[in-house]
Amino acid sequence: MSGSRVAAQAVRAQAAARVLGTVRREDKDRALELMAQALLRRAAEVERANQEDEERAREEGLTGPMLARLSFDRRRLERVVAGIADVRALPDPVGEVVEEHVRPDGLVIRKVRVPMGVIAMIYEARPNVTVDAAALCLKAGSAVLLRGGSEAVETNRVLVEAMREALTQAGLPADAVQMVEDTSREAAVELMRLRGLVDLLIPRGGAGLIGRVLEEARVPVIETGVGNCHVFVDRAADLDQAVRIAVNAKVSNPAVCNAAETLLVHRAVADAFLPRLAAAVAPYRVELRGCADTRAILPEALPASEADWDTEFLDLVYAVRVVDSLDEAIAHINRHGTRHSEAIVTEDTERARRFLTEVDAAAVYHNASTRFTDGYEFGLGAEIGISTQKLHARGPMGLREICSTKYVVLGQGQVRE
Amino acid sequence: MSGSRVAAQAVRAQAAARVLGTVRREDKDRALELMAQALLRRAAEVERANQEDEERAREEGLTGPMLARLSFDRRRLERVVAGIADVRALPDPVGEVVEEHVRPDGLVIRKVRVPMGVIAMIYEARPNVTVDAAALCLKAGSAVLLRGGSEAVETNRVLVEAMREALTQAGLPADAVQMVEDTSREAAVELMRLRGLVDLLIPRGGAGLIGRVLEEARVPVIETGVGNCHVFVDRAADLDQAVRIAVNAKVSNPAVCNAAETLLVHRAVADAFLPRLAAAVAPYRVELRGCADTRAILPEALPASEADWDTEFLDLVYAVRVVDSLDEAIAHINRHGTRHSEAIVTEDTERARRFLTEVDAAAVYHNASTRFTDGYEFGLGAEIGISTQKLHARGPMGLREICSTKYVVLGQGQVRE
Repeated sequence: MSGSRVAAQAVRAQAAARVLGTVRREDKDRALELMAQALLRRAAEVERANQEDEERAREEGLTGPMLARLSFDRRRLERVVAGIADVRALPDPVGEVVEEHVRPDGLVIRKVRVPMGVIAMIYEARPNVTVDAAALCLKAGSAVLLRGGSEAVETNRVLVEAMREALTQAGLPADAVQMVEDTSREAAVELMRLRGLVDLLIPRGGAGLIGRVLEEARVPVIETGVGNCHVFVDRAADLDQAVRIAVNAKVSNPAVCNAAETLLVHRAVADAFLPRLAAAVAPYRVELRGCADTRAILPEALPASEADWDTEFLDLVYAVRVVDSLDEAIAHINRHGTRHSEAIVTEDTERARRFLTEVDAAAVYHNASTRFTDGYEFGLGAEIGISTQKLHARGPMGLREICSTKYVVLGQGQVRE
Repeated sequence: MSGSRVAAQAVRAQAAARVLGTVRREDKDRALELMAQALLRRAAEVERANQEDEERAREEGLTGPMLARLSFDRRRLERVVAGIADVRALPDPVGEVVEEHVRPDGLVIRKVRVPMGVIAMIYEARPNVTVDAAALCLKAGSAVLLRGGSEAVETNRVLVEAMREALTQAGLPADAVQMVEDTSREAAVELMRLRGLVDLLIPRGGAGLIGRVLEEARVPVIETGVGNCHVFVDRAADLDQAVRIAVNAKVSNPAVCNAAETLLVHRAVADAFLPRLAAAVAPYRVELRGCADTRAILPEALPASEADWDTEFLDLVYAVRVVDSLDEAIAHINRHGTRHSEAIVTEDTERARRFLTEVDAAAVYHNASTRFTDGYEFGLGAEIGISTQKLHARGPMGLREICSTKYVVLGQGQVRE
């Protein structure tokens, strides 16, 4: 039965986590170094496994971005290995004293950062997640259960084998990094329900995957990644800046979650702004889909459907809507947004303040591109995903965000009256 | 249909939360003051409603602790009103800058504390939770949906009416505090599934309630309160201190979650310690249930069953077990504990360090009673519950712990390369 096998893996992960939680930084960093070496040593094997995955995926009819995300060549391997070095260089989050106070009776109450325990990742195609997540979890003192997609199973297997070999070599439990080889949906659901064994489940993938996890999971989950982001060009915007930001938020990398999908334009500047925007995005062949007011100014724009306001295109498509007021812009975003990244362009600081306060999102921007929502850009060093929920962590999640805390209370015999 | 009614309440709560999130501290504190006044003004009405609840509960056969928890007399009303004053005096958590850094290009990245939004509480008997939760949520800028037990429905109704009246008087939306009057299980399940409307659900009650919520909920939940806590008397313990702590952890208030349920005693000191313990708890009529080794030393102890190690007695019952080693004590706690509060009594700092690191719980104690795990004792000022999960908040939850954060990014036109 797949179920009991997943549970057995989680039991071993928990035992490994208990060991990892007590390991010093030097030993974790040494294991990370050995992981990087083991991965490079197996480069040819990784490439062969990836070719196998790609061939099978092509036979099964996978195309376009999904197939592209599956690809894991030497260059990508070297990039994830460089990522391991970044994680090594980061300070150890475990043991950090977050707060401390001493009560009048001398009792010391200390809030300390501790490992989460067992972290499960459920993700699609991209094999880089396999290595990134393992490195971050190891540094944060947690064991990880990696349940990647069936498309990448051969690649992931070699990557995980290499990392487990390195853990053994470092004298750490190999079960701190495990792959859930059973890629059936039943095994995934089993994993989502292992209360008391899985301390945190992070799904990474499209809206469909996230939705399924939220429905099925009985363990604590952090929702990640879906980004229907907006740029609002206010009536008080510097239009040069607005064009630059609106273009950057779409074209610098349209396939990622922090790219903007809808542009909201205040009616007072629509006539002046929209033709300049259209000219600026033309070289990138961005398809504009506008509301009726937009199309009155830009007749070449396609008509936007109601569904477009709720769509994360992840492509060179921009929905454009003219709004009558700041209130209308905020209401549109709070209704259609996914609470990821939202920007206002304005020279009016009071209007900016209202936008920043009233828009409900992980990151809100004044006069900057939404594309900055990222662990590296925000100074976390590396990230395991971007949380779009309000509990525990919001926005990019680095090492601290995959830890928990614990109160350590030091007494000399104190009792309570 | 009860369901759609609960959803409609949540929609109104969300609208109210959007207003509350922008309200200044002075206005929230003024509303809290008016709440306190309104509750005192209605004291006679509250008492009548509570008598009605008590009569009905008695008719329905409610007895003992459940009936005691339902009781809400003038003295208890005055205590919750005093609690409102405590909350008023606390600093406003909303708007606190948690972290800030400036990137080389001048972009300011600020992590700011923001309200959670809509918080739902599902709880049993105790009407004080109705007022405590409403006051804390209001101060933290969140709307609250209060779903108390059917036993307390009349009392809760009067309390909520008084608080809503005060909100209106203060010029704030009354829907920031709402009671879910439908106490059916269907309405509770509906509430647990309002994704996108309920940002956080906090169940408070026994293990049965918490378990049901964890199974049914599709909104983010914080698990609270079940406390199967232990005191471990190490071979290196100061036995005077060990007796004092072991007695206090049980008898100072056996009905609460931070009371100890099981006492673990190192074999090397069992002969010396156990007779002293038995003598010390005798005046309190504590029932001891021991393992075979315990009963060899204390023949008057009843035999402990396997189930006793997993039971939160919440009563003057102490399970007692002799262990051979620190490892055995840690393993017992990690297996049977509920990750609430765990104490070691020892003069050996290295053994203490191991216990504090390896025991997985919200609060771990060295030479102090588990009874200190409490929002007031930990300096949070007030608490909405004690989290026993690792995500978001662990241990006593005060104002900060019912907030979220948001990244506010301030630019001058920055775009990403």
